[in-house]
Amino acid sequence: MVLLRIALGKQLRELRHAQGRTLRDVAGAANVALGYLSEIERGHKEPSSELLTSICVALETPLSEVLAGAALNARRVEQAAEVVRPIRSAA
Amino acid sequence: MVLLRIALGKQLRELRHAQGRTLRDVAGAANVALGYLSEIERGHKEPSSELLTSICVALETPLSEVLAGAALNARRVEQAAEVVRPIRSAA
Repeated sequence: MVLLRIALGKQLRELRHAQGRTLRDVAGAANVALGYLSEIERGHKEPSSELLTSICVALETPLSEVLAGAALNARRVEQAAEVVRPIRSAA
Repeated sequence: MVLLRIALGKQLRELRHAQGRTLRDVAGAANVALGYLSEIERGHKEPSSELLTSICVALETPLSEVLAGAALNARRVEQAAEVVRPIRSAA
């Protein structure tokens, strides 16, 4: 089962890494606790829409781009499940 | 400011309308209260990732497609803001 917070957190972490920035830097810019941002990136916490927008601003990336990336992450998991399902059905 | 819950709610409502289904039908299939689904569609409530997945299953639409649609909704709002900003700056 694909979950939004997993697909989203992965995308936020990838963006931050691509910019060579630390959790401390982005958390400070987004005005969120470092530990909380880390939990969001790992898909353990659901950010509110307002907090997600703050993180997008901190990453200087439009929400639409973050969502498009999260959609691709979700698609990859869905495709992997499609590959697994027939194997299980055949078993 | 673009918010995830607005972009997502709009997409869920559009999908339901495109399928010619009622709030009652989709709420029943997703095992969520009708009023709560309506609040989600209007962008007033943040669905948990688990509930969002249940709604996607009820709409027989992969999460990736819902997120891609939400990304387009967010992009439209961002583009409208880009048009408005120069007008304000010039004033």
